[in-house]
Amino acid sequence: MENAAEGMHRIRLVVAYDGTNYVGWQVQPNGVSIQTTLQKAIENLVGEKVNVTGASRTDSGVHALGQVVVFDTHRSIPPEKYAPALNQRLPLDIVVQRSDEVAGDFHPRYRDVIKTYEYRILNRRTQLPCRRLYSYFVPRALDLDRMREAGAYLVGTHDFKSFCSPKTDVDSTVRTITDFSISREEDELVIRISGDGFLYHMVRIIAGALIKVGFGQKSPEDIKRAVEAPDGRPAGPTAPAHGLTLVEIRYI
Amino acid sequence: MENAAEGMHRIRLVVAYDGTNYVGWQVQPNGVSIQTTLQKAIENLVGEKVNVTGASRTDSGVHALGQVVVFDTHRSIPPEKYAPALNQRLPLDIVVQRSDEVAGDFHPRYRDVIKTYEYRILNRRTQLPCRRLYSYFVPRALDLDRMREAGAYLVGTHDFKSFCSPKTDVDSTVRTITDFSISREEDELVIRISGDGFLYHMVRIIAGALIKVGFGQKSPEDIKRAVEAPDGRPAGPTAPAHGLTLVEIRYI
Repeated sequence: MENAAEGMHRIRLVVAYDGTNYVGWQVQPNGVSIQTTLQKAIENLVGEKVNVTGASRTDSGVHALGQVVVFDTHRSIPPEKYAPALNQRLPLDIVVQRSDEVAGDFHPRYRDVIKTYEYRILNRRTQLPCRRLYSYFVPRALDLDRMREAGAYLVGTHDFKSFCSPKTDVDSTVRTITDFSISREEDELVIRISGDGFLYHMVRIIAGALIKVGFGQKSPEDIKRAVEAPDGRPAGPTAPAHGLTLVEIRYI
Repeated sequence: MENAAEGMHRIRLVVAYDGTNYVGWQVQPNGVSIQTTLQKAIENLVGEKVNVTGASRTDSGVHALGQVVVFDTHRSIPPEKYAPALNQRLPLDIVVQRSDEVAGDFHPRYRDVIKTYEYRILNRRTQLPCRRLYSYFVPRALDLDRMREAGAYLVGTHDFKSFCSPKTDVDSTVRTITDFSISREEDELVIRISGDGFLYHMVRIIAGALIKVGFGQKSPEDIKRAVEAPDGRPAGPTAPAHGLTLVEIRYI
């Protein structure tokens, strides 16, 4: 898969991280980004400057199990060796899960994908310290059946303009949600949602809207209306970043 | 339940904490302890000096869901109000789950109890950053059935002198294990163990010994021998603190 013209290899990494101590995926003036941290580790390994591209620009505090990252290098290291070699150069809160070589025209963002996110809600009377950075603490009772009913309206191809940040800058706010589920794992509610792409803050606004439904402050029909006849007003508040995990990006 | 002679109230707290950033329960010269942090919050609330006693002296890095803590105070705050009032004064990694008043002779350590601990092992090929502080990462395959067979030998009343730190300073190393289980939760093995008391490092040495059994480096019969005819040599290495959580202390 070497790009013969330039002797370049495009390496793909699947990366997990704890987003707590980062300003997010992308370089920001106010702190350390995951992108920069990975770039430094890769440059230290390959001994040349690299550009690191991620499939998802996760926000500060958002976690990942399966972020997909590519870079090009002239070095001919066996592709599967990148994962262990980089993990020796990375802080403990970023771990490359696996590495391989992809075609020179593989771009992690401009490809057909199914992305899966999880939003975790710790739903009990008191906070659990060991979950505080990975789950949104909601002490009030949530009606899971109502949340499920509301969530089912999200599945399909819809204009999600009521489910994105006003800062969203895209040509189209139409997206397809392929799967949606809410399950209870002991004290945690886990919203799991898959689709071909997500707008800025989309999963967090979905979580925020569903929590309102769970409280009884919104009805499942409100969500149906927001999906079928969006008026552009946000369907719900943006739930905090730390409950969100980018689980998987599947290239189709 | 007021101690009429002195106008004192003995308040019991059930406390959860993330042990990562502490030197352990007890005051140590090299850092901040959970005991000290709780004591300061309580003194700030009640406006007088207090002595804080915990049921278990958890090590640095060990977590708790249900540490039991008592202190005496002259103040007459409704006992259930201590939990929310203290949580406003505590850092986010220590959370009082509930509070009540107990008899003036209730001592959290010198009472018949069943304590339950969990030891978590992340058993997969690569580390997961969001689990790194709460689960011991073991990338190598573990034979769960062998570990279960070995663990079953621990149940009952035995001399656990091969399952404690050489630093243990107690009259008797005989303890009763009432329950033992190992379950798999996705990528995690959860060793859950209950008993009337645990020696210094006992659960961590049990975990270390069972991991050796899981690797095939020790046999279930080795554990049987260490329990039934202890020679004082440690039955296994001491597994790291961060995999351990004090789950519950039940007064019987």
